[in-house]
Amino acid sequence: MFTPGGIIALTTDFQTDSFYVAEMKVAAHQIAREALLVDVTHAIAPQNVAQASWTLLRALEAFPEGTVHVCVVDPGVGTDRKILAAIIHGQAVIGPDNGLFDVIASRYHVAAVVELSNEVYFGPRRSHTFHGRDIMAPVAAHLVRGIPLGSLGDAINRPLVTDQTKANLFARREGNAIHGQFVYADSFGNCVTNIFAEDIPAQWDRSRLRIESETLSLDGIATTYGERQPGESVALIGSSSQLEWAVVQGSAAQKYGFPAGTAVKIVRENA
Amino acid sequence: MFTPGGIIALTTDFQTDSFYVAEMKVAAHQIAREALLVDVTHAIAPQNVAQASWTLLRALEAFPEGTVHVCVVDPGVGTDRKILAAIIHGQAVIGPDNGLFDVIASRYHVAAVVELSNEVYFGPRRSHTFHGRDIMAPVAAHLVRGIPLGSLGDAINRPLVTDQTKANLFARREGNAIHGQFVYADSFGNCVTNIFAEDIPAQWDRSRLRIESETLSLDGIATTYGERQPGESVALIGSSSQLEWAVVQGSAAQKYGFPAGTAVKIVRENA
Amino acid sequence: MFTPGGIIALTTDFQTDSFYVAEMKVAAHQIAREALLVDVTHAIAPQNVAQASWTLLRALEAFPEGTVHVCVVDPGVGTDRKILAAIIHGQAVIGPDNGLFDVIASRYHVAAVVELSNEVYFGPRRSHTFHGRDIMAPVAAHLVRGIPLGSLGDAINRPLVTDQTKANLFARREGNAIHGQFVYADSFGNCVTNIFAEDIPAQWDRSRLRIESETLSLDGIATTYGERQPGESVALIGSSSQLEWAVVQGSAAQKYGFPAGTAVKIVRENA
Repeated sequence: MFTPGGIIALTTDFQTDSFYVAEMKVAAHQIAREALLVDVTHAIAPQNVAQASWTLLRALEAFPEGTVHVCVVDPGVGTDRKILAAIIHGQAVIGPDNGLFDVIASRYHVAAVVELSNEVYFGPRRSHTFHGRDIMAPVAAHLVRGIPLGSLGDAINRPLVTDQTKANLFARREGNAIHGQFVYADSFGNCVTNIFAEDIPAQWDRSRLRIESETLSLDGIATTYGERQPGESVALIGSSSQLEWAVVQGSAAQKYGFPAGTAVKIVRENA
Repeated sequence: MFTPGGIIALTTDFQTDSFYVAEMKVAAHQIAREALLVDVTHAIAPQNVAQASWTLLRALEAFPEGTVHVCVVDPGVGTDRKILAAIIHGQAVIGPDNGLFDVIASRYHVAAVVELSNEVYFGPRRSHTFHGRDIMAPVAAHLVRGIPLGSLGDAINRPLVTDQTKANLFARREGNAIHGQFVYADSFGNCVTNIFAEDIPAQWDRSRLRIESETLSLDGIATTYGERQPGESVALIGSSSQLEWAVVQGSAAQKYGFPAGTAVKIVRENA
Repeated sequence: MFTPGGIIALTTDFQTDSFYVAEMKVAAHQIAREALLVDVTHAIAPQNVAQASWTLLRALEAFPEGTVHVCVVDPGVGTDRKILAAIIHGQAVIGPDNGLFDVIASRYHVAAVVELSNEVYFGPRRSHTFHGRDIMAPVAAHLVRGIPLGSLGDAINRPLVTDQTKANLFARREGNAIHGQFVYADSFGNCVTNIFAEDIPAQWDRSRLRIESETLSLDGIATTYGERQPGESVALIGSSSQLEWAVVQGSAAQKYGFPAGTAVKIVRENA
């Protein structure tokens, strides 16, 4: 069901250069010395579970089968929130049960989920405030070494996300419009939406669609940034197959804001 | 006395993404290709030796025996300040003799210290401004490869820190109060003190202690952030066993300041 | 001509902690699992090709022969700009043909250049906006595994930089003066120039030279920061053998600005 591939991928809100990242790496390395530890990002805004959940989707698409992801955005650390390990899209994902799994569990089949409870696979240090180091990184390392998921704790048999949650996460089409929202801004300030390339019917002419958000609108979905002049807005399908609103050689996030949750729609005119 | 474990840990004030870090890594890797290079942090405030000295304590607690630490916070580079290598807590620590060693040498037994002088183990490049790359990283790599400490230079036989320095670094108990200070803020803005869990007598009821700093006070030491509401202050023992003052889902450093050196005390009432 | 040494070095403008970096690393790792991936920097200012070109010079000097560099500062991604791979100074450099190669190709002999066109060595993902992940990282990994440069595409036989470009990049001596410019500020705010140690005649007494920029001037080139008091300006030859203007324990970039392109000269008086 899950065959580990030797990579542990780390996504946290610890912020850049935090020594907490090093502590997690050491905890994993002590158990699985041969594992390759890859930083996805540590720049999730503090406690921003929604941003982390979209980043996990991107990570699952970028990393190979067998990767073990650890995602620590965990404002409830030390309380009775559960910590889960799930097999999704051929990869293992470990994180607190606080909504982090919503996007990936809605988009991909969830093959299995357990609640981490078997302390045999926890690390030697035990704090109430840093389960990334004390529980999640050690468990990830044990998974890389081949410990089966079922050994880590009891299976969770309810669905990982509700249908209601799923319905609210992704874009929906209504006739000649596709309604979505901005979900994050990337490191260039490109504002990425929850509208995927596949949400746009193949027979729609992309160059004649209109993108609208609040009082702003843009004509046409371009293929490259180079099709517009520096400083101009451009809509295109980015490298994660999601529609994004960019400013050529600038930052759409700085120029327009578009905080996560802002509505955006694609409108097909004169169809 | 010291058996290298294959890890070189880097702590600097070069700031994130500085190519100086890459240059140090290349210098080490050229000598010890098999070493695992782990970034502790490069976000020490420029020339802030005190912050680095507390970070080194945290690093020594997180990394396994046999780790070689290189700490480059070195405003005196190129002058006649010494560069030292010390065996402390089963690990090797290399850095300039400018106070970086104060905290770790006060808290742990120092097994040996040498002054780096044997140029055989320096790197091929020789600048007056970057001894991290030209001296410290190469020497760390040689230590990882098994070169004995004594080959690196002459032993320093005086104590690494004075009793006076030790007395000023850590918290002290006076009757029903423990007097300490804030020593750094972490990447979440949690303000960490020099009061350790073990400084608080076991028979004191933590939930009834009062934490005071300047005109502010807090009642009780909590176990988790989740015991207070978002935006509220909470005192707890953090993941390094040090008392910290946090704001739930916020930043105590932003809200209150508490720069390093600010006095803080624990008061036991109605004992 | 080029023997790979197992290291892939990454220089981008993705900014710190961008998950785009992780995606490039995964793309390379999928092909060359044994390669060592080293971050040079991801903090190039967005689309700042000039800054990247000077950083590449620094990287070529720091990394060993056989290193494969990937440099992604690529505002023209997806347009018809070429992507090149060049053998320079015993190392391979992959990047868009937008000026990134100017400094290194002016300073070192260029042994060979090809335009990347053989899609056999591209990665499985194909976007119009992220050729770092989809083309450059996979090609770098194939180079590390021993694929010869000539297999990657057709040779470019014109010079990589024009004589006019070369003449404008570096400092020039006119009698008792050397005319140059600031080219970047490092992570400490030290302002680095395009005047190299070797540009200064050996018989000139460095301690008696004057450094001038705009209305500011400094007397003497020092050897270490420690020769001036904290807060004072100091000119010295930095760790890349380039003249820099620093503020002791401060930031010259913050205090004086000196944006890239600002003229600076060394004047020899009373010779």
